[in-house]
Amino acid sequence: MFQLIENAQAGAIFALNEVIQAIPWNEDGLITAIAQQYDSGEVLMLAWMNLQALQETLTTRRACYWSRSRQMLWRKGDTSGCIQQVHDIRFDCDGDALLLLVDQTGGACHTGRRSCFYNAVRGDGVVVLASPLRL
Amino acid sequence: MFQLIENAQAGAIFALNEVIQAIPWNEDGLITAIAQQYDSGEVLMLAWMNLQALQETLTTRRACYWSRSRQMLWRKGDTSGCIQQVHDIRFDCDGDALLLLVDQTGGACHTGRRSCFYNAVRGDGVVVLASPLRL
Repeated sequence: MFQLIENAQAGAIFALNEVIQAIPWNEDGLITAIAQQYDSGEVLMLAWMNLQALQETLTTRRACYWSRSRQMLWRKGDTSGCIQQVHDIRFDCDGDALLLLVDQTGGACHTGRRSCFYNAVRGDGVVVLASPLRL
Repeated sequence: MFQLIENAQAGAIFALNEVIQAIPWNEDGLITAIAQQYDSGEVLMLAWMNLQALQETLTTRRACYWSRSRQMLWRKGDTSGCIQQVHDIRFDCDGDALLLLVDQTGGACHTGRRSCFYNAVRGDGVVVLASPLRL
């Protein structure tokens, strides 16, 4: 299916349920999902989805992931209030990664920071770019 | 290590070699790496790195991944010419994902498209956003 889509021209449309059926889930039944702030372009976090999380996200338009540490659905923001309204969902070329364009309320990171990617390599060091807001 | 960094304020500096030693590699010895165009913010692709790929990328400032399909180092652009000059490398909060801010020559996708994330969900369909340039 994804090889078929690769050859398609811009504007071609495929059935979503057939695309979902073709997802090459990993051995744990998961797919990576990148969350990006839809307007600023800031990459917020990387998480994982199983089929149920993806289907719930598609239905509710609110990001729902699979927590690998807790082994349960993770409705982003249920505890923190920092929900992600989903503006767009994109599959990559081979279907094993998703890009979610979201509107992030508050911080995406569990530390309260806006993005999880706050550790920048500078020479032989790693510099923290933002202070924690909660832990 | 990453729990220590979580609590650090902006500007704190940690030793890169200690951060790398603390990476929680997956069972295959890999970490996910997101490539984002440094100036436009476009998310280009998601790939994987092992320690050797990360060290080479840090040294050469040119993105080198680990190809899971070919089980070998994948010096992005060696075949296609579509290299990624690395402007910045960021670790996420728990150290199991990297964000590379790159300057992408040509297309990041093996189809020649600029980004791999060209399949957008629209209702019950998936719309192809860009045509292939090569396959």
